[in-house]
Amino acid sequence: MTTTEITVSGMSCGHCVSAVSGELKKLPGVEAVAVDLESGRVTIESQAVLDAAAVRGAVDEAGYEVVP
Amino acid sequence: MTTTEITVSGMSCGHCVSAVSGELKKLPGVEAVAVDLESGRVTIESQAVLDAAAVRGAVDEAGYEVVP
Repeated sequence: MTTTEITVSGMSCGHCVSAVSGELKKLPGVEAVAVDLESGRVTIESQAVLDAAAVRGAVDEAGYEVVP
Repeated sequence: MTTTEITVSGMSCGHCVSAVSGELKKLPGVEAVAVDLESGRVTIESQAVLDAAAVRGAVDEAGYEVVP
């Protein structure tokens, strides 16, 4: 199991959290996503190392941005 | 056509706007809902005068509150 930690900007409520989590959970191998709304910290548990571009793409798809 | 104006607290993003609009549009006779996110002002166009309790109930159902 791999843990990936990213920070996502622009999330302001539980709906935002759901949108980001939902897109990240669609990525192959992702088993769990935890979001701390206040800090924007997102922890992703996956079966293998995630492709950084795919993670950024999923967050973008939800309408938010990964803080570099 | 009747116009009802309410103020809703707690909306922070477009998802919140969608949630509130969606619930209000389910009320019988409601034809249009416009939300100003910044002010929380919600304008509802309906075929007849709306029941205040039903409006409050719909906003509550979406997870927000009508400012008295």
